[in-house]
Amino acid sequence: MAEPQPAPSGLADKVALSCCSDPEPCAKDFLLQQTMLRIKDPKKSLDFYTRVLVMTLLQKFDFPAIKFSLYFLAYEDKNGIPKDKDERTAWALSRKATLELTLNWGTEDDETQSYHSSNSDPRGFGHPGIAVPDVYSACKRFEELGVKFVKKPDDSKMKGLAFIQNPDGYWVEILNLNEITKII
Amino acid sequence: MAEPQPAPSGLADKVALSCCSDPEPCAKDFLLQQTMLRIKDPKKSLDFYTRVLVMTLLQKFDFPAIKFSLYFLAYEDKNGIPKDKDERTAWALSRKATLELTLNWGTEDDETQSYHSSNSDPRGFGHPGIAVPDVYSACKRFEELGVKFVKKPDDSKMKGLAFIQNPDGYWVEILNLNEITKII
Repeated sequence: MAEPQPAPSGLADKVALSCCSDPEPCAKDFLLQQTMLRIKDPKKSLDFYTRVLVMTLLQKFDFPAIKFSLYFLAYEDKNGIPKDKDERTAWALSRKATLELTLNWGTEDDETQSYHSSNSDPRGFGHPGIAVPDVYSACKRFEELGVKFVKKPDDSKMKGLAFIQNPDGYWVEILNLNEITKII
Repeated sequence: MAEPQPAPSGLADKVALSCCSDPEPCAKDFLLQQTMLRIKDPKKSLDFYTRVLVMTLLQKFDFPAIKFSLYFLAYEDKNGIPKDKDERTAWALSRKATLELTLNWGTEDDETQSYHSSNSDPRGFGHPGIAVPDVYSACKRFEELGVKFVKKPDDSKMKGLAFIQNPDGYWVEILNLNEITKII
């Protein structure tokens, strides 16, 4: 086990300094590949993620024996999707920063079924965050598409930062890379 | 609004075919930047994410007026971290696939405080997933480090796939890019 190493310079914080380590050789090449979210209705979710958030569906997997399906989405060029099925699977699962949407079959027709966003009690998970070139024009388009907002860009003191809701009620943050230093 | 387009070939699925769209020009250059999770104790979380999962702390932000801090982590080379504070902030927030850990001050000393993983009722969010070159050697190391497992690689029919728990009890999937096609 490696001895704890100082955090990078510029972080004059005792907690950060004492708790951060450098990677060990045996643990290299790790990759944050996915964030999994359960979804109630794939029609609504695929429409939201591909049309509203303009993500690409990389691959879908069905598991009939246990009655669930997985949908992997990311910001990837469709032209890069391999045609061979196994190659496509390996490609889809080696993309960085994917959303893995899990459908337990039947939830779309079950009126009593809904998922918890974790932004009210009991809390935990917060949201995925999408960086966009211009929060205001992105949000104008979201409004035109009828997207539900938790926070519009000019609500509250944190201007230029928005939260929208997906069909399951999970929050999605919309942030602007060029402006974020002014907000934080 | 763009007309719905067929999904890429190889996805012979009515839902996927009818619900996926091509990106509009006004919505290009979107980026899945972050997954936000609330944390109870930054000492435990920073130790877990930097030592156990070998991620890099990109930047920490404090908001004293509203008593919270944000810690951004990702698989990035520390040598690439800009020294200038504003440049570092812009850099940290433009990295793809970061974890944004949110600390509401005081939770680390509050024995009644805990967060909900969403993998028991009420469900919703599932987990972040880390792709590793070798699940078995990664998990052997996790065991030696005393990490808590939800599923070891050989538990259940899905061999070569593991779930561990972070200090807040959230699940983290450990998957192997080279072997995943055999599992799915």
